[in-house]
Amino acid sequence: MNGIVVRNIRRADAVIIESLGRLGVATVHEAQGRTGLMQPYMRPLWHGARIAGSAVTALCHPGDNWMIHVAVEVLGRGDVLVVACSSESTDGAFGELLATSLMARGAEGVVLDMGCRDAHEITAMQFPLWSRAISAKGTVKATLGSVNVPVVCAGVQVDPGDVVVADDDGVAIVRRIDAETVSKAGEEREKKEAVSRVRLEKGELGLDIYGMRSALDDKGLKYVDGPLD
Amino acid sequence: MNGIVVRNIRRADAVIIESLGRLGVATVHEAQGRTGLMQPYMRPLWHGARIAGSAVTALCHPGDNWMIHVAVEVLGRGDVLVVACSSESTDGAFGELLATSLMARGAEGVVLDMGCRDAHEITAMQFPLWSRAISAKGTVKATLGSVNVPVVCAGVQVDPGDVVVADDDGVAIVRRIDAETVSKAGEEREKKEAVSRVRLEKGELGLDIYGMRSALDDKGLKYVDGPLD
Amino acid sequence: MNGIVVRNIRRADAVIIESLGRLGVATVHEAQGRTGLMQPYMRPLWHGARIAGSAVTALCHPGDNWMIHVAVEVLGRGDVLVVACSSESTDGAFGELLATSLMARGAEGVVLDMGCRDAHEITAMQFPLWSRAISAKGTVKATLGSVNVPVVCAGVQVDPGDVVVADDDGVAIVRRIDAETVSKAGEEREKKEAVSRVRLEKGELGLDIYGMRSALDDKGLKYVDGPLD
Amino acid sequence: MNGIVVRNIRRADAVIIESLGRLGVATVHEAQGRTGLMQPYMRPLWHGARIAGSAVTALCHPGDNWMIHVAVEVLGRGDVLVVACSSESTDGAFGELLATSLMARGAEGVVLDMGCRDAHEITAMQFPLWSRAISAKGTVKATLGSVNVPVVCAGVQVDPGDVVVADDDGVAIVRRIDAETVSKAGEEREKKEAVSRVRLEKGELGLDIYGMRSALDDKGLKYVDGPLD
Amino acid sequence: MNGIVVRNIRRADAVIIESLGRLGVATVHEAQGRTGLMQPYMRPLWHGARIAGSAVTALCHPGDNWMIHVAVEVLGRGDVLVVACSSESTDGAFGELLATSLMARGAEGVVLDMGCRDAHEITAMQFPLWSRAISAKGTVKATLGSVNVPVVCAGVQVDPGDVVVADDDGVAIVRRIDAETVSKAGEEREKKEAVSRVRLEKGELGLDIYGMRSALDDKGLKYVDGPLD
Amino acid sequence: MNGIVVRNIRRADAVIIESLGRLGVATVHEAQGRTGLMQPYMRPLWHGARIAGSAVTALCHPGDNWMIHVAVEVLGRGDVLVVACSSESTDGAFGELLATSLMARGAEGVVLDMGCRDAHEITAMQFPLWSRAISAKGTVKATLGSVNVPVVCAGVQVDPGDVVVADDDGVAIVRRIDAETVSKAGEEREKKEAVSRVRLEKGELGLDIYGMRSALDDKGLKYVDGPLD
Repeated sequence: MNGIVVRNIRRADAVIIESLGRLGVATVHEAQGRTGLMQPYMRPLWHGARIAGSAVTALCHPGDNWMIHVAVEVLGRGDVLVVACSSESTDGAFGELLATSLMARGAEGVVLDMGCRDAHEITAMQFPLWSRAISAKGTVKATLGSVNVPVVCAGVQVDPGDVVVADDDGVAIVRRIDAETVSKAGEEREKKEAVSRVRLEKGELGLDIYGMRSALDDKGLKYVDGPLD
Repeated sequence: MNGIVVRNIRRADAVIIESLGRLGVATVHEAQGRTGLMQPYMRPLWHGARIAGSAVTALCHPGDNWMIHVAVEVLGRGDVLVVACSSESTDGAFGELLATSLMARGAEGVVLDMGCRDAHEITAMQFPLWSRAISAKGTVKATLGSVNVPVVCAGVQVDPGDVVVADDDGVAIVRRIDAETVSKAGEEREKKEAVSRVRLEKGELGLDIYGMRSALDDKGLKYVDGPLD
Repeated sequence: MNGIVVRNIRRADAVIIESLGRLGVATVHEAQGRTGLMQPYMRPLWHGARIAGSAVTALCHPGDNWMIHVAVEVLGRGDVLVVACSSESTDGAFGELLATSLMARGAEGVVLDMGCRDAHEITAMQFPLWSRAISAKGTVKATLGSVNVPVVCAGVQVDPGDVVVADDDGVAIVRRIDAETVSKAGEEREKKEAVSRVRLEKGELGLDIYGMRSALDDKGLKYVDGPLD
Repeated sequence: MNGIVVRNIRRADAVIIESLGRLGVATVHEAQGRTGLMQPYMRPLWHGARIAGSAVTALCHPGDNWMIHVAVEVLGRGDVLVVACSSESTDGAFGELLATSLMARGAEGVVLDMGCRDAHEITAMQFPLWSRAISAKGTVKATLGSVNVPVVCAGVQVDPGDVVVADDDGVAIVRRIDAETVSKAGEEREKKEAVSRVRLEKGELGLDIYGMRSALDDKGLKYVDGPLD
Repeated sequence: MNGIVVRNIRRADAVIIESLGRLGVATVHEAQGRTGLMQPYMRPLWHGARIAGSAVTALCHPGDNWMIHVAVEVLGRGDVLVVACSSESTDGAFGELLATSLMARGAEGVVLDMGCRDAHEITAMQFPLWSRAISAKGTVKATLGSVNVPVVCAGVQVDPGDVVVADDDGVAIVRRIDAETVSKAGEEREKKEAVSRVRLEKGELGLDIYGMRSALDDKGLKYVDGPLD
Repeated sequence: MNGIVVRNIRRADAVIIESLGRLGVATVHEAQGRTGLMQPYMRPLWHGARIAGSAVTALCHPGDNWMIHVAVEVLGRGDVLVVACSSESTDGAFGELLATSLMARGAEGVVLDMGCRDAHEITAMQFPLWSRAISAKGTVKATLGSVNVPVVCAGVQVDPGDVVVADDDGVAIVRRIDAETVSKAGEEREKKEAVSRVRLEKGELGLDIYGMRSALDDKGLKYVDGPLD
C-alpha cells in the first residue's frame, strides 16, 4: 500500500464529531475503554486549541513531506490531516505555507508524528497543530508514500475517516463506527463527573464518593497513626 | 512497606517553609550544598507558580493512581502531595477532579513522577502542579501502594514532612530537620547575590567580583590576542 | 586546544547579521542548503525572541560553568554567547546573574548546550536564551575549557565569529564567510514564498503552484476513488 | 475491544511462514515495500535466533501481565506471542516460568513491547525473545486486556494470524493475506542480491552494479580532485 | 552531607548475603514486595555475573570520579561499590585501573550510575560491573563528594551496608535490617516456583496452576470462538 | 557544500595510525586533552574489534544512503568510512552488501551516525562497524549529500583524513595534523599506567599512587569513623 491516494473517504456524522470535540481527549479516551490515545510526546504547538474532525491520513518517509502536499487536495472542510512517518523523524515537515494552505481549504488542524517549523507564525495564525517536535530542518519531496490508507501514528492505528480529537492533553482517535457510542458514553461520564466535582469542591473525599474504602480494606491496606520518625 | 498509610507526620515550622518558598528552588538547592534537586524532567504545568509546603508522600504503581485518593484524606492545609511510582510511567494519574479535591482541602500543590491530564482545566484553576508528562492515559485503582512512607521521587529521597519547594526551575526537597539551617543559608546567599547583581548591572565582570583570575592563572589559562583565522 | 582564550575574533558585517536575523532560522537554514541547524532539543526559554549576532564560543565541561565567566570579558555588543559542553549535561550553567552580566555588556543572547536556571527571572528580563534543559542544578568552577575556539554545539560546528540566528524554531549557524551569500539567498527565498502564500490563501494547491504533478506521476503515484472500506 | 479472548484465528500457510523466516527481517521488510517493521528499540535477548510464526496477540496494561497468562491457552504450535501494552512500560512482564510454559506448548518465541526478566535463564533455554527492555520489575494480575484482537506493537499494527518474522535485525510483521506475495518477492530479491554480492566481492562498485551514475549526474553531483586542505 | 567519608559501616551477615546472591535480582525484588530495584538502564558490562555484597557508597559529581578513589580505601572484602552522581552523567568514571584496584582489595563488583570505560579489558578481567553507559570520556578529580553516606542510585535509596544483588536482570538493593527476612521469603518463593516449573514443563496452564480463572471471570473476561476476520 | 565529492584526501602516516589503533579509544581521547570522543550512543555491532584508519566522510540525509555508495569509490585501503546524517535517523543505511563492498576494497571499518542492518551477517563477516542503532528499515537513494567534506558525526567534527580510532569503548577522532603528537602522548600515558597497574595489583591505593591526599585535605574532606546508623 505504497504510492496510493484514495480520493474519497467515509466520515462520521458532523454532530457526533462536534460532540466528541467538546468532550475533549481525556473524556473520549476514557469513554472508549482507555484506547485510542496517541503517545504523550504529541504536544500542541500552542495552548488552548480543542478540535475534532475526520482523519485524512498521509504516510510520509523520514525527511520527506511530499505526501502532505498530495493530501491537501483530498482534504475537505472539517478534516484533520494526520501525518505518520515510516520511521522516527523530527524533521520540520510542516510549516507556515502548508498551514496557510490547510486553513484556506477548511481543515480543522494537523497532527504530525514528525516535526513542524515556523512555530511563531503558525501560533500567530492560531492554526491548531500537534507534533512530536519543533524543528526547522527542511524536508525533500522525493519518495512516494500514500494518502488515505490506514497508518500507525504515535502508537495508534488511524484509518481514514476516523474521528481525531485533540486538545492540550494530546490526541485521541475514535473509530468512525464507534463514534456515536463513544459520544454517548462520554456525555454520561461528563454528567457523573459534574456531580463528583460539586462534592469534591465541598471537601468530600473521593474515598467516600467513589466508595473505595471496602476495596482498600479487602486488599489489606493498613492505617497507622504515626508519626513514624 | 507496602500497603501502609501513616495518618500523622511531623512538619517543619510554617515560617521557615514560607521563607524557603520565597527563596525558590535554585537558591535553596545551592544553600543546602547542591543536593535535593529533582531531575530536570519535572516541569511545571503552567509558568509562574512558586510554592513550598510539607511533603505528604504517595507511592503508586505504573498505570494506577489509587494511593493518590488515599493520600487526600491525610493531607493538611499547606501540604504538597508528592507522588512516586514504582517504575517509570507517564500515565495521567492526576486530573482536574483530584485538583479540585486537593484545592478544597487546602493543599499547596502536587509533584508527580507520573503524568497529569486535564492540562487546560488545571491551568485555568491555577492549581500548582509539576509532573514528568502530560498524558490523558487513564489509570486504574487496583494495586496497593503506601502513603506517608519514604519514597524516591524523580531521583530524590523524600520523607513525609520534608519541605517541598517548587517553581519554574523545578522541584527541590529540604529535609525537615535541615529546614531552618537551609533557610538561613539561603537568606545569606540572597544578600550576597544582591550585591553582585548591582555590580554586574554596571558592567563589572564576574571574573573580578568573584576573584577568579588568580585561580584561572594557576590552572594555566592562556590568553591569545587573535583572531586566529 | 584546551585552556585557551582568544580575545579578538572576526565578525560578519552588521547589516548582513541584521538581515539574517530578520529572515529567521527556517529561511536561513534552507537558504544555505539545509545545513547549520542545531538539534531540535535546543529550545527557547520564552517565546517570541528572534536574534542574530556573532558567536563567541565557550567550551565547558559537565557540571562546570567557569568558562562562561571567562567568556563574558571578551564578548562585545551584538555578540551571542554559544556554550558547548565536552559531554552531555543538563546542569544549570547559566542563571539570572550571568544574564544580568551579559545584558550589561550588550550581548544579544545565549545559546547553551547545557541547562539554564532562574527561568522565571530570565523570562521577566526578556533576555533571549536557548538551551537543552531547565535545571536548577548548580555548577562548579574547577576545570579549564576554552573561549573562542571552534566547538560543536548541539550537533553543529561553530567557529568564533560565525553568525548565530535563533528564534522559536531553534538555532542556526551561518559561516561568517557565507553570511552575505546566505542573506541574499534568504531574501530571494522570502520573495518566492510571499508569492506562494498569496496563491495558497486563495485555495490554490501546492501540487499546482510547485508543479509537482508530473514528478508524482513519473514515480507512479496512483489515485483511486474510494472509499475503500 | 477490552476484556475479550478470541480462541481461534486464521493462520498463513506453514510453508510460506517457513520461507519468510528463512528470508529474515531485512529482506521481508524490503519485499513488502518497506513496511511492517517494528521500531528499532525491539531487541533480541540473545543473538542468533531467527524465527517466524503466526501472531497470537495480547494487549496488556502497564505493570500488568495477566493477559499473557490468558494468551498461553490459545497459543498453538508454531505461534509467536505478540504482547502490546496500552502505554509505555518496561516492567518485566515475561520471565523464565512463562518461557517454560510457552516452550512446552510449542510456541516459536515471544515479542514484547514491555520488559522481560530472568534474562540469564531464558538465554540458557535458548527461547527466542524480543523486547524493549530487560527489567526485573514484577507485574500484577489486576486489569483485563484482550487476546487475539488487533494491537499496535512497537509502532506496527498486528492482527491475529499475521506472520511475525524476527531475527538479530528486529521484528517485522507480514499481513496474513500478503504472506505468499511477500515470500515470492523476497525470494526474488534474494536472488538479485546473490548476484550483486559476487560482483561486490570482486571489488566492483555499487555505483556501476546498480547503475547510479547517471541519476547522480542528473541531480548535479560534482566531483573535485582535492585534497582541499 | 558533602565532603564526608565514613570509614566503618555495619554489614549484613555473610551467609544471608550469599543466599541473596544465589536467589538473584528478580526473586529478591519480588520477595521484598517489589521494591528496591534500580532502573532498567543499569546494565551489566558482560553477561553471566551474579554477585551480592555490602554497599559502600560514593557520591560523585558529573564528570568527576574523585570520590571513587577515596572509597577504595574503605572498601572491604566482599563489598560492592555503589556510585551515585549528583546529576545525570554518562562519563567514564571507572576504568581498568580502578577495576584492578578493586579486585586487589577484594571487592565483589561495582554499580555505577555513571559510565565505565576500558570495556574490553574489564570484560577480560571478568570483573563484575553494572553501569548506565559505556563511555571513554575522561573525568576530573576536582570536586568533593562523600563516601558511605545515603545516596539515590538509579532511582533507589542506598544506605551504606545495604545488600546489593546484581545479575543479568539488573541491580536490586535489600535494606540491611531486612536482609534475613527477604532471604527467607526468597527461598520460599523459589520452592513454589520449582513446583510450578515442573507443571508448566508438562504443558499445564498458569491459568490453572495459579487459579486465575475465577478472578478473570469475575472481572468479566469474555471468550469468543472466532476467527473474527 | 552539498553535492560535492572530493576524490583525494591527505592521510596521516600509516605507522602513526597503527600506533593510535593499538593505544585504543580511552587512551587516545585522554592523550589529546579529552577531546574528539563521539557520543556514547555509538556502539560496536560486535565486541572485540579495535581499528584505526583515515576518515573518508559521507554526509547523508535521513532515510537515504545514496552517498555511502558514492563514497565507496573514493575509499582506499586502510580507510574508515564515517557516515554523518543531516538529522537524527536510525534507519538501516548500511547492510551486508555494503560491508562486502567495503571489505573488498580494503576498508578498515565503518562508523555510522545512522542505523545498520544484517547484524547477524556482518558479525559473521567480522567486519568492524559502529553505529547508533540496529534497524532493518530500508533507505532510499534520492537526495544528494557529499563525500569527503567536513562533517559532524555523533557530536564530533570530522575532516576527511582525520584518524578514526574505534574499539569497544566507542569512537575517537584525532586531527590528522595532531596524530603524531597524540600518538606520542598516548605512549607516555600507557607507560605511566603500566607502573600504576603493578602497584594497584599489589593493593596499593590510588590515593597514594596519585598523591591525592593533600588536595583532598585542602578541599576540606572529613573522615569520621562511623558507623553512623
